[in-house]
Amino acid sequence: MTEPARFRVYWEDTDGGGVVYHARYLHFFERARSDWLRALGFGQRDLRDRVNRVFAVTRMDTRFIHPARLDDELLVSVVVKATRAVSMDFVQTMHRAHDQVLLATAEVRAACLAADTFELARPPADLLAAIKQSQTE
Amino acid sequence: MTEPARFRVYWEDTDGGGVVYHARYLHFFERARSDWLRALGFGQRDLRDRVNRVFAVTRMDTRFIHPARLDDELLVSVVVKATRAVSMDFVQTMHRAHDQVLLATAEVRAACLAADTFELARPPADLLAAIKQSQTE
Amino acid sequence: MTEPARFRVYWEDTDGGGVVYHARYLHFFERARSDWLRALGFGQRDLRDRVNRVFAVTRMDTRFIHPARLDDELLVSVVVKATRAVSMDFVQTMHRAHDQVLLATAEVRAACLAADTFELARPPADLLAAIKQSQTE
Amino acid sequence: MTEPARFRVYWEDTDGGGVVYHARYLHFFERARSDWLRALGFGQRDLRDRVNRVFAVTRMDTRFIHPARLDDELLVSVVVKATRAVSMDFVQTMHRAHDQVLLATAEVRAACLAADTFELARPPADLLAAIKQSQTE
Repeated sequence: MTEPARFRVYWEDTDGGGVVYHARYLHFFERARSDWLRALGFGQRDLRDRVNRVFAVTRMDTRFIHPARLDDELLVSVVVKATRAVSMDFVQTMHRAHDQVLLATAEVRAACLAADTFELARPPADLLAAIKQSQTE
Repeated sequence: MTEPARFRVYWEDTDGGGVVYHARYLHFFERARSDWLRALGFGQRDLRDRVNRVFAVTRMDTRFIHPARLDDELLVSVVVKATRAVSMDFVQTMHRAHDQVLLATAEVRAACLAADTFELARPPADLLAAIKQSQTE
Repeated sequence: MTEPARFRVYWEDTDGGGVVYHARYLHFFERARSDWLRALGFGQRDLRDRVNRVFAVTRMDTRFIHPARLDDELLVSVVVKATRAVSMDFVQTMHRAHDQVLLATAEVRAACLAADTFELARPPADLLAAIKQSQTE
Repeated sequence: MTEPARFRVYWEDTDGGGVVYHARYLHFFERARSDWLRALGFGQRDLRDRVNRVFAVTRMDTRFIHPARLDDELLVSVVVKATRAVSMDFVQTMHRAHDQVLLATAEVRAACLAADTFELARPPADLLAAIKQSQTE
């Protein structure tokens, strides 16, 4: 399992209620998945341009437990729950860094698509191998 | 039941994949709930300033079925599924206006909070009455 | 001159200071330019897909005069100040609808690009003709 | 002068044109100013809660020179150009990390406000002293 990604909360993330706007949690979860892919050696711009693949979220169940606030540092984890022919399931958590309080969780299904046609498509074999490898470490 | 809210997709909503960024669907769903509250007579700035209440999403299950694209017009519905002591459940749908294709659905729980303390708090009685009234129309 | 575009301020637009986040004003200005183009008969998705043209902001000078707040309705104008070979200059204003207070102004230069190569390119002649026509009305 | 802040471009930052949406550059510039303040010892949540001060951008002139793209790393600098009674002027640059290409510049005026009333107010003396100190290093 890889280290959780670490992000800072800025003004852009907050709303007039004084806390992070709920949809912004999805941004942090997505950044963590992007960083996790990059750490496996797969930048998404490269995936798109070289092997014509993008990932699209098809379902996302999010629980907002405690609000994140301006200047908080967030730790966001990524765990692969399942890989299927043309999609992957992730379980993710977000903790506040300074006191390890759990702020939010997400279950995410990402479909793999051909970047040009948006048709479902198999992920690259080397990506699947890298994921499997990372899970046994 | 009120009319669905109507929103346009602008550049800001799209991402480099050429379609609407997944977290932006939550914005459209939230705008529809805000417009629905306003149509019931309850602006949220007024709710906060006058009776010290805000709503916070505590869970949201979203299904992304077909992508929305630049310039699309979206129709977003709001149905109250349940009202409880300090929260409400909504079921929402998003359709593309020109061909009525279902793009996304969401189940949303919104907790009612005291705006100053962020403690759970009862919604205003006149708001609950207005919701009940709207459901029998 | 076309009617100003009308937009509502939602939670997504506000930040923890209680007012609209400064970068969001650029979204409203951009939406107004998109609606203005559409009113001239030129949807930008169509421009991209049919004649391979997109517009990119290359400079933008913005003055933030009074803050916009949650639930405000905004009126955003678009005036073409100059058209050149491969760019256009706009002057835009944002007023609060209910009391006509001026909230912000922007001077914007948008370059016309070939959508596939991002090279500077001439705007379609029929678009330029439509703009000229609109200015004499 | 402090080190430039370093940020990654994620999907959320891009638009359907395939590059970073123009208003998102303002987010990166703002994050860099926030990180710069924090490095001086002044978190903005603390400034608001402890001494009742927030900063609001009142003018911003931005030049978009080359587009940032997905996965790019950005280096964003902050230089204080002037401090006045109730405002500060900054000059900022954004470079692409891997080849040091200049992507954008910004001139920013930030007014200091009382967080509760939004009236113009003097910045804390210790903040001004820290800024002066940083400029002589």
